[in-house]
Amino acid sequence: MSTAPSAPTTMWREVTEQPVAVARTVDALLPLRPELRTLARDRKHVLFVARGSSDNACVYGRYLLEVHADRPAALAAASVANHYHARPDLSDALVVSVSQSGQTDEIVETQAWATERGARTVAITNVADSPLAATADVALVTKAGPERAVPATKSYTTQLAAMAVLGTALAEDMHALDGELARVPDEIDRLLADRDTVDAAVDRIAAAGETLVAGRGLVYGTALEVALKLEETCLRPVRGLSHADLKHGPIAVVDAQLVTLLVAAQDGPMLPGMTSLAGELAARGATTIGIGGDARFESACELGVGGPDLPELLAPLGLIVPAQLLVEAVARRLGLDPDAPRGLSKITQTDNDTAGDTR
Amino acid sequence: MSTAPSAPTTMWREVTEQPVAVARTVDALLPLRPELRTLARDRKHVLFVARGSSDNACVYGRYLLEVHADRPAALAAASVANHYHARPDLSDALVVSVSQSGQTDEIVETQAWATERGARTVAITNVADSPLAATADVALVTKAGPERAVPATKSYTTQLAAMAVLGTALAEDMHALDGELARVPDEIDRLLADRDTVDAAVDRIAAAGETLVAGRGLVYGTALEVALKLEETCLRPVRGLSHADLKHGPIAVVDAQLVTLLVAAQDGPMLPGMTSLAGELAARGATTIGIGGDARFESACELGVGGPDLPELLAPLGLIVPAQLLVEAVARRLGLDPDAPRGLSKITQTDNDTAGDTR
Repeated sequence: MSTAPSAPTTMWREVTEQPVAVARTVDALLPLRPELRTLARDRKHVLFVARGSSDNACVYGRYLLEVHADRPAALAAASVANHYHARPDLSDALVVSVSQSGQTDEIVETQAWATERGARTVAITNVADSPLAATADVALVTKAGPERAVPATKSYTTQLAAMAVLGTALAEDMHALDGELARVPDEIDRLLADRDTVDAAVDRIAAAGETLVAGRGLVYGTALEVALKLEETCLRPVRGLSHADLKHGPIAVVDAQLVTLLVAAQDGPMLPGMTSLAGELAARGATTIGIGGDARFESACELGVGGPDLPELLAPLGLIVPAQLLVEAVARRLGLDPDAPRGLSKITQTDNDTAGDTR
Repeated sequence: MSTAPSAPTTMWREVTEQPVAVARTVDALLPLRPELRTLARDRKHVLFVARGSSDNACVYGRYLLEVHADRPAALAAASVANHYHARPDLSDALVVSVSQSGQTDEIVETQAWATERGARTVAITNVADSPLAATADVALVTKAGPERAVPATKSYTTQLAAMAVLGTALAEDMHALDGELARVPDEIDRLLADRDTVDAAVDRIAAAGETLVAGRGLVYGTALEVALKLEETCLRPVRGLSHADLKHGPIAVVDAQLVTLLVAAQDGPMLPGMTSLAGELAARGATTIGIGGDARFESACELGVGGPDLPELLAPLGLIVPAQLLVEAVARRLGLDPDAPRGLSKITQTDNDTAGDTR
């Protein structure tokens, strides 16, 4: 039985808008690559600043910059700027700040601090006339359109698209991924149409005593984002872990109560490890649901949810889509409203509790 | 009633050896500061490489370097070296690799890769004749002595001591924290003697449906380490989160089933936020147990466990101690063996399942 909503929720509608939103964003941002390349020419290090879903987009950006552009990249801690007022020399750094609204205080303040410390800055935001865009050297304005559901969906995928633009801009061959990047909207479209394997997974996740999401490398950020979405939308604690961190301790608590979601690209050096992890988790009695991967990975999992036909470097732009469908359906199955989870507002100010309109 | 073990477990014995282990380590490593300072002189960036408890020690190291030495610092992803074979220019980087045994393959390999990419290297390890120590530019060999219980305790605190030596070596005034650093062993001693508040917390944690540990900034790594220890020793899923990440989503799932451990230093810019977090969590019905903090923080928590009289920059060296006592006692209360948790071996190889003797 299909778990698609009979009366579409706002979250569901925004999920289905992603092919258009991503295509629009890629078209708008690709022409900025030469400017990004010039801006970053003498910048050896890339630092990302964000929170929440935007932070998960940065985890993808970080791996993409390191793996595809050979540029050391890391996630900055905003508190080092805003609370400790550290004074590092950032004259060799490109600082990339990411915020859907472009108005989260701590992100705007960290970008200002980075500029003062000598950094060049790139803002990734969905709002063209936001403070974050206004004060960056280059603004990559995503074209998600207004996002009204609290869980970030199309704003997140368009952030990933902006990361792909940035990562390719700084790569040796700027055009190496262009053909694959152009196929992303069609792949998202195809994944939206194919609900069968998603439907099969909804029951098991809804019935789970405990849920854990794992991924690794380029897809690690996807695992974190799936965990965050499941948690905030379905109101249950869910952990997102890297394959490596899972094996370094938490695997001790895996048992038959646990449902694991394993996210993998269809190729790349992480796939064998994720496939053997599926076997290990199953041997400990856990339910394993794979998202993406290849045929071997799928058969190592109890249940496989189809992923995109995209190379690992771009796979996160597609892998999140079946997971979003899953999260939206599980929330409804649990009698919850996916559009407005308890206790969350659209703009989160970490250090004070004000919240405003995002647009 | 005291929850101290009647027949001491190995973990408990190793916890009590920490005053001596830390004093010995500080004495052995302080003379290396000029050498570290010279090694790092033209190195603008610091990258840490580790897994598990050692990774949590690096989270402290990262904040200490940024806050106290104004040096941009980040945690590296070992997979970027070992799986993706990225080729970044690390000629401006100091790479700090941390492994108790000094023989975890992926850490040793990442250090070799960093050297090839132009980095200078520092190893922090408990084994002087390990491959990690042998191949580093400078080896900071901790003096924890053999550690036989699976949960890392004294090897972790001596890693924190090595981080303090490194952080002060690179600070503008190398000696600014020397007096406080010398007091650390006595503070640990005092915390070991004062079990009363620890005992009061054991029952609540043993009875918890779900446990979450939060900290922020310099103490964030402590929260991660307490969560990892509780999880691997008490065989239950426990999350370690930063104050900021908690407020950015997961706070939606806080309810009366949850026991939260909040870790805070007695001073510093993070204390007001942690104090108000305690109030927010209590308002959502969660049980709040504070470790450390000041009088105001303690009274905002339902139960307060005393912390060290150390400034925030060194607080992690003391804050972990009552948490270790707590974890050891909770494991026994649950009928588990704290020395040998299910499913874990002393050396973890992330990418294959071999395990060996650590010494």
